Amino acid sequence: MKSYRKELWFNVPNRRGFVNITSQVEEAVRESEIREGMVLVNAMHITASVFINDDEHGLHQDYEKWLEKLAPHEPVDQYRHNDTGEDNADAHMKRQVMGREVVVAITNGQLDFGPWEQIFYGEFDGRRRKRALIKIIGE
Amino acid sequence: MKSYRKELWFNVPNRRGFVNITSQVEEAVRESEIREGMVLVNAMHITASVFINDDEHGLHQDYEKWLEKLAPHEPVDQYRHNDTGEDNADAHMKRQVMGREVVVAITNGQLDFGPWEQIFYGEFDGRRRKRALIKIIGE
Amino acid sequence: MKSYRKELWFNVPNRRGFVNITSQVEEAVRESEIREGMVLVNAMHITASVFINDDEHGLHQDYEKWLEKLAPHEPVDQYRHNDTGEDNADAHMKRQVMGREVVVAITNGQLDFGPWEQIFYGEFDGRRRKRALIKIIGE
Repeated sequence: MKSYRKELWFNVPNRRGFVNITSQVEEAVRESEIREGMVLVNAMHITASVFINDDEHGLHQDYEKWLEKLAPHEPVDQYRHNDTGEDNADAHMKRQVMGREVVVAITNGQLDFGPWEQIFYGEFDGRRRKRALIKIIGE
Repeated sequence: MKSYRKELWFNVPNRRGFVNITSQVEEAVRESEIREGMVLVNAMHITASVFINDDEHGLHQDYEKWLEKLAPHEPVDQYRHNDTGEDNADAHMKRQVMGREVVVAITNGQLDFGPWEQIFYGEFDGRRRKRALIKIIGE
Repeated sequence: MKSYRKELWFNVPNRRGFVNITSQVEEAVRESEIREGMVLVNAMHITASVFINDDEHGLHQDYEKWLEKLAPHEPVDQYRHNDTGEDNADAHMKRQVMGREVVVAITNGQLDFGPWEQIFYGEFDGRRRKRALIKIIGE
């Protein structure tokens, strides 16, 4: 069994944003030289997500609005977590809806994807340097 | 390390529906001849889910109603994604709540499940042919 | 490829609660003697979650309140699942929001974690003995 590890770094300029990282994950799969296996991609921070969905701008606007409805940022004092001096309790909730990680099959040395699947880093508390982890195992 | 790959195809007759695929995943595990490892089962489409929960009709009605409350289909023009001519923005949200994939342990050649765990394909934009992927790695 | 399996048992005294299981997962990784691989940790019950987030008491209060808003326990007769004599339909929903499982990379014999990541068992229908599964594969 072979394994490969790589970190991706982000500094999203706004509080929230989505970054398409598909090509960076594909690059890591090539670097790993693993032909059959699985790749795990996860946010290393608990106010961010890695998820798979569509690279369509309108949908990303819909996600932004919808997540704000499910777990609004304001008023920040509605959350006990923010009593600690933080203002990011909503980000811990949005990340649970969108998920921490994805696991993707590798077949013939490639991401084994359906027609529209793209991998995103979802930032919910940005404006600072944060990381995602790529871990690949297989042969 | 061995690996095994199989696709499952669906054509759910309504917009939304849940299909119990546990026995098909069990069959793939047998075909793989893998005794110890992990099986990944994921929707290959971004308006569908694979998830694990109860095979109980009342609960599936509750999920239907609950997901419609969290991300209503109508009115379709509330979503910017639907400006593209689609009407399935809500399906992209419902799928995030229910999840894209499950990873299940394989022990002694079987799905290593608790008493009530069953695997479902969750369709949120049906009435067309769509796929799920089974990928197994182990020994 | 090596594999390792372990069960964790819980008896959460209230209907809902969060239990930090990070050190127990770390112990299982040590016991496995696997240096590079992946660990799957999943609830074996369909009214419980395993998720990764912050070990901060205020946040856990926020999660409790937020999940009750998204999928209220009362009135129990709003759910068709509860027509079966159960009263835990809401728990099946809360578990979908928080997720069934996490997959974590193992690097150099350790959980490959960002600075604040901690693993929790999330109970939504407690006051009885329930289990989580740890399955590790790698080398």
